[in-house]
Amino acid sequence: MRNFLCNRVKSITPYTPGEQPKDMMYIKLNTNENPYPPSLKVLKAMKDSVTDKMQLYPDPESVKLRKRAATYYNVKFENIFVGNGSDEILALAFMAFYQDTKICYPEISYSFYPVYSNLYQVDDEKIPMNDNLTIDVNKIMNKNKGVLITNPNAPTGEHLNIETLEKIISSNNQNVVIIDEAYIDFGGDSVISLIDKYDNLLVIQTFSKSRSLAGLRIGIAFGSENLINQLTSIKNCFNSYPVDKISQVAAIASFDDELYFQSICQKIKNTRKYTISELEKLGMEVLPSKANFIFSKHKNINGEKLYLKLREMGILVRYFSLPSISEYVRITIGTKEQMDKLIKAIRKILK
Amino acid sequence: MRNFLCNRVKSITPYTPGEQPKDMMYIKLNTNENPYPPSLKVLKAMKDSVTDKMQLYPDPESVKLRKRAATYYNVKFENIFVGNGSDEILALAFMAFYQDTKICYPEISYSFYPVYSNLYQVDDEKIPMNDNLTIDVNKIMNKNKGVLITNPNAPTGEHLNIETLEKIISSNNQNVVIIDEAYIDFGGDSVISLIDKYDNLLVIQTFSKSRSLAGLRIGIAFGSENLINQLTSIKNCFNSYPVDKISQVAAIASFDDELYFQSICQKIKNTRKYTISELEKLGMEVLPSKANFIFSKHKNINGEKLYLKLREMGILVRYFSLPSISEYVRITIGTKEQMDKLIKAIRKILK
Repeated sequence: MRNFLCNRVKSITPYTPGEQPKDMMYIKLNTNENPYPPSLKVLKAMKDSVTDKMQLYPDPESVKLRKRAATYYNVKFENIFVGNGSDEILALAFMAFYQDTKICYPEISYSFYPVYSNLYQVDDEKIPMNDNLTIDVNKIMNKNKGVLITNPNAPTGEHLNIETLEKIISSNNQNVVIIDEAYIDFGGDSVISLIDKYDNLLVIQTFSKSRSLAGLRIGIAFGSENLINQLTSIKNCFNSYPVDKISQVAAIASFDDELYFQSICQKIKNTRKYTISELEKLGMEVLPSKANFIFSKHKNINGEKLYLKLREMGILVRYFSLPSISEYVRITIGTKEQMDKLIKAIRKILK
Repeated sequence: MRNFLCNRVKSITPYTPGEQPKDMMYIKLNTNENPYPPSLKVLKAMKDSVTDKMQLYPDPESVKLRKRAATYYNVKFENIFVGNGSDEILALAFMAFYQDTKICYPEISYSFYPVYSNLYQVDDEKIPMNDNLTIDVNKIMNKNKGVLITNPNAPTGEHLNIETLEKIISSNNQNVVIIDEAYIDFGGDSVISLIDKYDNLLVIQTFSKSRSLAGLRIGIAFGSENLINQLTSIKNCFNSYPVDKISQVAAIASFDDELYFQSICQKIKNTRKYTISELEKLGMEVLPSKANFIFSKHKNINGEKLYLKLREMGILVRYFSLPSISEYVRITIGTKEQMDKLIKAIRKILK
């Protein structure tokens, strides 16, 4: 078997997404999906859009969606970029801004970053965490490098406030700073308001988590008009039409049902609080989380073993083999019913 | 305004897709879309899929779609790759196979190829066309380079037969040869049957043309299991979930209504024959075409002028400013009614 991969990418290790199992029905708490479906209004808008001349290309610039998002987020249309999921936006941003720039990011953060670094041969520095797995913020100031921060962080759930992030952005002013806000709607504070002040800031969000649209692929980014134009030029060198018609309609509709959106975010926050409290009663340690997942461990069982035991019992959580976090499992916050089953299962395992 | 683009991509010129105008209703013959919608069965399958747990991620490996396509094309599931449109597959293939390889392609072919070459800094040789704008096949043999052939070619419409393509593939055996069959269903012969014989062959097709699904974004590629695995590893370094749930369902359904598919392809072929005959009556020269478009010129008017005049009259065709083809316009084959309006307009312009 011949290897046709070019040298630049030959030795690369791809990202491993959480399992999407097909063998049986699991309680799926492993990929941070929303336990609630999109609102009925979103589903209706999607169905209605199916007849909308599917033989014609979508708007390559997603103008209607970007205009609607601009109103919603109180920014200008020109500050907005959309892509085929936030991962595509991250991949394009690496391609655009980081290929011959040094970058840094916290050692424990979204595990796709090192994959992108390898893909584009970016010189990346992984900033060691504090002992309690929090981000060592001081070590990310004045790096004179590109910076990536997941906020709230994954898989730890830690949330940095706007003041802290502003210091990181302003002290690394010569390069693009990406704040990856995939989980921001579950209790965090977005830095979108800083895009007018810092032309090196790119904020990335997704419709796959809080907006319950992982089945479609929609990501959104915010930045200065200049930065968005630069990202757009690279997008137009890669794929002119990345976001399909139905996705554009669904994303717009998701902004139109704010009540539903807020209600499911609140439910998840309530369930998170409940779950943390119940797990702590079982002697589990849970890191503070502003995301729709929690990172948790127990002194009597390591992460892999807990993951495997739960899997046997029909519950999927996420385990990372990285030594510094191998004691932990990451648990997505599902419905209260799902969490009760999880708690019951963990109680049984710990006995 | 600061430019944050890295040096590697700073001076790049993006691909320019055909206009998707919003100012008025045009007869749109500029982006090779299908004039007919997807079949009712496809639309029904799409609508039905909207309720299908949109909050959960799609299958990242598109297994059901690839299995259905394998049956349809009589290949193995492992020979199939799907992506977010054939442009994404091309972009990933360049990233995977060409970044440090020399490549060549006919000077007049899909205008995205030179953009990808620039994006990935690929050393690309553009093989000059014969005087009649056909591909100079002999000059593409034994290049010891990667090769890209659009078949039928765009924007000329020329179709190379399997024997000729096999010589190109076998004589460039050390590198990946991509046969880009975006327009193959309008009368061409696919080289998919050669993937078992040549492990360096990648065949790329799209659902945007013959299958009337440009509004979604679905591309498909065929190759040896080994080659597909290598392409998949790069896809998994870029975006794990590129094809959404509804697109996967729609693509499967498009294979299930073969009668409709064949009937619209036949209608387009009939209309192409009719249009060529009518344009020739007006003194236009039309290159032979096996695609859903024709490339045509008239000695009394250059391509840009004809394009602009038609635009004024509410008809969009595609004009390329490249000197060697600036006399021509590319006209997508629409419905017979649309073509009658086009013919009438050209008659008026030529008077």
